[in-house]
Amino acid sequence: MKKAELAIEAVYLADDPSTFVTRRVGEIPIELGGIPGDRHYGLLRPADSRQKIYPRGTMIANRRQISVVSAEECAQIAEELGLPEVRPEWLGANVLVAGMAAFTLLPAGARLLVPERIGLICEGENLPCKHPGDVIERETGEAGIAARFVRAAKRRRGIVCSVEREGVLRAGDALTVFYP
Amino acid sequence: MKKAELAIEAVYLADDPSTFVTRRVGEIPIELGGIPGDRHYGLLRPADSRQKIYPRGTMIANRRQISVVSAEECAQIAEELGLPEVRPEWLGANVLVAGMAAFTLLPAGARLLVPERIGLICEGENLPCKHPGDVIERETGEAGIAARFVRAAKRRRGIVCSVEREGVLRAGDALTVFYP
Repeated sequence: MKKAELAIEAVYLADDPSTFVTRRVGEIPIELGGIPGDRHYGLLRPADSRQKIYPRGTMIANRRQISVVSAEECAQIAEELGLPEVRPEWLGANVLVAGMAAFTLLPAGARLLVPERIGLICEGENLPCKHPGDVIERETGEAGIAARFVRAAKRRRGIVCSVEREGVLRAGDALTVFYP
Repeated sequence: MKKAELAIEAVYLADDPSTFVTRRVGEIPIELGGIPGDRHYGLLRPADSRQKIYPRGTMIANRRQISVVSAEECAQIAEELGLPEVRPEWLGANVLVAGMAAFTLLPAGARLLVPERIGLICEGENLPCKHPGDVIERETGEAGIAARFVRAAKRRRGIVCSVEREGVLRAGDALTVFYP
């Protein structure tokens, strides 16, 4: 099976109920329901505008618990926006990886493993919405960023993952990606 | 979104611990973990030879709780084997549908909905193994069936599904299939 090796640069937690912005931590425990204490934790979640086949608010299986972005693509978004950096925290990312071009294009069904410890399933691209643009505009003080974020982040905003094997994910871990 | 309409002909339960063979019932309750009382129930299950990226026995997310077969493909398997019928029970099926050609080729990610009530996610083809062939040989008394089953059932043995929306599935329900 074809595979690739990535590095986990940092891990983050969204444990402030007032925002989706994450904060850097040393490690994150990961269960089938996601990261305990994180705002996206839960085996079920309400259907939203992305799941048009269900009435909005219907409780459905949650397969978007873990947001993973890449250092290379964060730098590309920053360059596109004319900023020195775009921090993973501002995107609400839980995991920052490095070492793969076009990380966001990883196909659904790919597996991301820390061998002998943890396994995630790629559920596809995390489609950009405007909220991180608002955060970046506020954090950087650069006017007009919010309006340009969605376009700059398309196909660069990382992926969402569900959990296949429970365990602990740490900054510094090596991540093996298996293609479907 | 492209869709198709199927009929649910019958539903089944594998609640005899001594066998994977199912028995016909009027309805099956379906939770995120599968069908309570069914042998494939559980949010987690041990990895087997199909998940080579994990050591055998590692507990991983269970996405194979519900087995769905089609009446048309059961008839094709029977014809290939020279039998009057192949019953869904012998394949360990939980759901028998009718009304779609090449049902087994439904792509992973397709949704099977009883609107306003239940939602399943197609996780792909249920690859034939030899055990149902043994059952069919024993049930029909036809020698040599077991050896020929896997080949006859390939791309006709139905799909496995995980659960997106919990609810009750009944014989006679209309099922809407949404393509990914």
